Amino acid sequence: MNRHNALAIVKKQLTEHRYIHTLGVTDTAIELAERAAVDPSKAEMAAIFHDYAKFRPKDEMIKIIHSQKWDPAFIDYGEELLHAPAGAYLVKKEAGINDEEILSAIYWHTTGKAEMTSLEKIIFLADYIEPNRRFPGVDDVRKEALESIDKAIISALRNTVIFLMKKNQPIFPETLNAYNDLVITERKERMKKRDGTSKNT
Amino acid sequence: MNRHNALAIVKKQLTEHRYIHTLGVTDTAIELAERAAVDPSKAEMAAIFHDYAKFRPKDEMIKIIHSQKWDPAFIDYGEELLHAPAGAYLVKKEAGINDEEILSAIYWHTTGKAEMTSLEKIIFLADYIEPNRRFPGVDDVRKEALESIDKAIISALRNTVIFLMKKNQPIFPETLNAYNDLVITERKERMKKRDGTSKNT
Repeated sequence: MNRHNALAIVKKQLTEHRYIHTLGVTDTAIELAERAAVDPSKAEMAAIFHDYAKFRPKDEMIKIIHSQKWDPAFIDYGEELLHAPAGAYLVKKEAGINDEEILSAIYWHTTGKAEMTSLEKIIFLADYIEPNRRFPGVDDVRKEALESIDKAIISALRNTVIFLMKKNQPIFPETLNAYNDLVITERKERMKKRDGTSKNT
Repeated sequence: MNRHNALAIVKKQLTEHRYIHTLGVTDTAIELAERAAVDPSKAEMAAIFHDYAKFRPKDEMIKIIHSQKWDPAFIDYGEELLHAPAGAYLVKKEAGINDEEILSAIYWHTTGKAEMTSLEKIIFLADYIEPNRRFPGVDDVRKEALESIDKAIISALRNTVIFLMKKNQPIFPETLNAYNDLVITERKERMKKRDGTSKNT
C-alpha cells in the first residue's frame, strides 16, 4: 500500500487533531528509521496506522482483546491502552496490513514492552516526541532521541510512569519491563565499554 | 523468644546506627499492629530481626538466594535487596525463628509484593517511617499511616520508584506489583463505597 492510500484510509477513522498527530508521528518515524537503518517504508506504514482504532467504541476494543486471548491487563490498566492492540487487529482485518513487524509496532506503541524491536522502539518514541506534542519534558526527550533511541525511550517511560503514579494510577506491568530492560541493557553496555577501555590502556 | 533475648542476638549483627533504626522499626511496628488488630508480639519479632543480614557479605547472601532457588531478580536489581530474603533464611537457621509469617515479613520488607499480609505491610511501612528516618516525603507518609496503612504504603512505594527512576536504576518488578495491587484494590473499594452510597440515597 502506498502512503497516499494509507493516509486516506486512516483519515476516515480519526479527528482532524488526531490526523495531524499521525502525520507528525509518520515524519518523525521515517527520520528515526533512516538514522537507525530500519526500513523507512515499514516505519511509515506503522506510524500512519498506529492510532487507527483510537475512536472505536470501548466495548468493541475489549471484545477484540478477549477474542484474541490477549493480556487482560490491557483492559484493567486504563482505557487509553485498548486502542493499541485493538488497532493491530483492525488494521489487519480492515486495511489488509499483514506485515507482522508493522502490526507488532502498532500493538505495543502505547505501553512499550521488554525486548522491543527497532521498529517497535521507533513507533513508540515517534508517538511521544512528534512535533505537535506539548508536555513537560518532551523537549529533553527530543534532544536525547538525536543521540540514542534507547536513552530517549528510557526518559519517555520514566516520565510516563512518574506522571501516572502522581495521579495514583496503576502502571501496566509490561511498561515497567520495557524500562527495566533498557536500563539494564544500557548498564551492561556501559560496563562492557569501560572494561574494553581499561584493557586498552 | 522474648524481646530482651532477640535484641541481644540482633545487636551483635548490626552497627549502632542500624541497631537504633531497628529499635525505631520495632516501636513503630508494635504501634501499627495494635491499631490494625495484628498480633503485636509477631510484629515485634519481625521488626527486631528484619535487618539481621544487613552486614553479611554480598557473596554469602547471593549464595543463599541461589541455594534456595529464590527469584534471581533479588540479585540483579540492586545489592540493597539481598539482605531481606537472606535475612529470612539466616534468622531461621541461626536464631531459630520458625514462624513463617514472621519470616515472610522479613523476606519482603525491602521490596514489598502483591497481596501482602497485614504483618508484611506493617514491617514494610514501619521500616519506611520509623522516627529516625529522614528523607523528603517521609512526614507525609507518617501522617497517612495514621489513617490508612495501605495508602501510606502506596505513597512509600511511589516515592521509592520515583527516586530510583530519577537515578536511572531498575525497579524490582514485584515492587511495582505491590503498588498496582494496592492502587487497584483501593480503587475497587472506593467504587464499592460509592455504589453503596448511591443505592442508599
